[in-house]
Amino acid sequence: MPRGPVDVPALVAAAREGAPRAVARLITLVENADPALREVMAALAPHTGRARVIGITGSPGVGKSTSTSALVSACRARGSRVGVLAVDPTSPFSGGALLGDRIRLSEHALDPDVYVRSMASRGHLGGLSWATPQALRVLDGAGCDVVLLETVGVGQSEVEVAGLADTTVVLLAPGMGDGVQAAKAGILEVGDVFVVNKADRDGADVTVRDLRGMISLGDRSEPGRWRPPVVKTIAEKAEGVDDVMEALDKHLAWMQEGGALRERRVHRASREVEAIAVRTLRERMGDVRSGHGLDELAAEVVDGRTDPYAAADRLVASL
Amino acid sequence: MPRGPVDVPALVAAAREGAPRAVARLITLVENADPALREVMAALAPHTGRARVIGITGSPGVGKSTSTSALVSACRARGSRVGVLAVDPTSPFSGGALLGDRIRLSEHALDPDVYVRSMASRGHLGGLSWATPQALRVLDGAGCDVVLLETVGVGQSEVEVAGLADTTVVLLAPGMGDGVQAAKAGILEVGDVFVVNKADRDGADVTVRDLRGMISLGDRSEPGRWRPPVVKTIAEKAEGVDDVMEALDKHLAWMQEGGALRERRVHRASREVEAIAVRTLRERMGDVRSGHGLDELAAEVVDGRTDPYAAADRLVASL
Repeated sequence: MPRGPVDVPALVAAAREGAPRAVARLITLVENADPALREVMAALAPHTGRARVIGITGSPGVGKSTSTSALVSACRARGSRVGVLAVDPTSPFSGGALLGDRIRLSEHALDPDVYVRSMASRGHLGGLSWATPQALRVLDGAGCDVVLLETVGVGQSEVEVAGLADTTVVLLAPGMGDGVQAAKAGILEVGDVFVVNKADRDGADVTVRDLRGMISLGDRSEPGRWRPPVVKTIAEKAEGVDDVMEALDKHLAWMQEGGALRERRVHRASREVEAIAVRTLRERMGDVRSGHGLDELAAEVVDGRTDPYAAADRLVASL
Repeated sequence: MPRGPVDVPALVAAAREGAPRAVARLITLVENADPALREVMAALAPHTGRARVIGITGSPGVGKSTSTSALVSACRARGSRVGVLAVDPTSPFSGGALLGDRIRLSEHALDPDVYVRSMASRGHLGGLSWATPQALRVLDGAGCDVVLLETVGVGQSEVEVAGLADTTVVLLAPGMGDGVQAAKAGILEVGDVFVVNKADRDGADVTVRDLRGMISLGDRSEPGRWRPPVVKTIAEKAEGVDDVMEALDKHLAWMQEGGALRERRVHRASREVEAIAVRTLRERMGDVRSGHGLDELAAEVVDGRTDPYAAADRLVASL
């Protein structure tokens, strides 16, 4: 991709027209934390807030990419423009990280109304939580009606990423002990819709029953709260995908009625603003560092003339 | 452990006398990010800067705890007070996380001049880099002459933890493909002393040769730079431990002569101060959040009336 100085108005205009290269370039700016993002986000702001963000998470092997692909088809059948953002919190590599997924999504490769992108955390602590909402914002501003945010369910990261979606789909497969794993990983708390994929395999009904049991035991069963449905699919044959779409629509309607949609989005935006603010402050500290202010404070700490808290107070005061 | 209001002066005085319970309590305050830490660190400041911090890292199975235990014995033979801080960046659990290590270190359990403590990251992003230097500071202030900072070499975290040590020992074992792994993990860059443990196993000499080759190829071979020695040990039989001690002493002497020791410590303190400052700022943002200021900004972002960067600027300005 050619890299010149960024012509933000032209780039944003092209992205809003749906030009894949322009969208790609904008997300690369996000990945690189490019200073031009300020201008990009200011230009995109009036055009955001329209996309429906659906998170899809699950352990490796549950059929995540096949399910995502089937959902893309279902959204396309409704005429929606679709963005897929595949986030791998375990990989420091971008682009190639989820190559497998991108190949599987290749059935949509020639569809101009489907945009697929992989992102990785690049090994930065907090990098994912910083970059993902801004990438979603780009896809939203670029006119996607639906964005599927796909993430590998490993450790805590999928819970974090799920916090960015309007609706979170947790995928499981029979016979992986997923029920218990879900409970352990805190996934029961974040799923709005549970999908037991590979439902033609032994044990599918047991997994469904286990899940329903666990949901009915949790506080999700309280009145007024959304009670997550459990849907069976065979994504490879596109079986059950309509049921998933129906569950997604019901959840959206429920959220719109009760105000939960706006609440989630405000929460998401507040975390996004906070992450940007922390980064801004870190950059200012970097300026202090390059001006040797921080080193002088640190030398005082090393000499025992002050303690790190008092030094930190002085650092904060100097920002 | 009894939890009352913290009597900081009494606790610090007891820790300086080497009372293990007082040291334990102080490190628990660090793990819990207790507000009393400000006072603790202010009281400890004049008594810090004396401990020599030796980082020990390596993949699971290379004999890390046995080697640590052998080094503890060697330090004790010199009459040094020793602290061992075992940090597991992969575990969200404290205390029990490295139980195996603590059991193996049990030969020193009755020695009042050896203090052993495990810490875990508790799943907080940045938690480890925040807590570890402060725990080192506690052990330093409690009169440890040497602190062995042991960490599991997984991913990027050991590089981070190694940055906290005066001298970093990278442990390897023959036949684990460790040479290549070390190069991949960036461990070649952080090791000041390389130890090939289990040297009675097949392939030990190959591992030593590979390592020396890689070191001589890298920029560590430039004149004026420390060229990391490669030492063979059989930690279980305490063989080669004297050679490791000699290598450690040479590295310390080299660092003292050239000013690198102070440089490293200033760098370490500056990261510590920075981490505390970032936390302070995050707490202030939390105050903004509970005052609904952040939510109002986030609502404007959701409505497209402003963008997240402009909102972050206003958030920062309000701190």
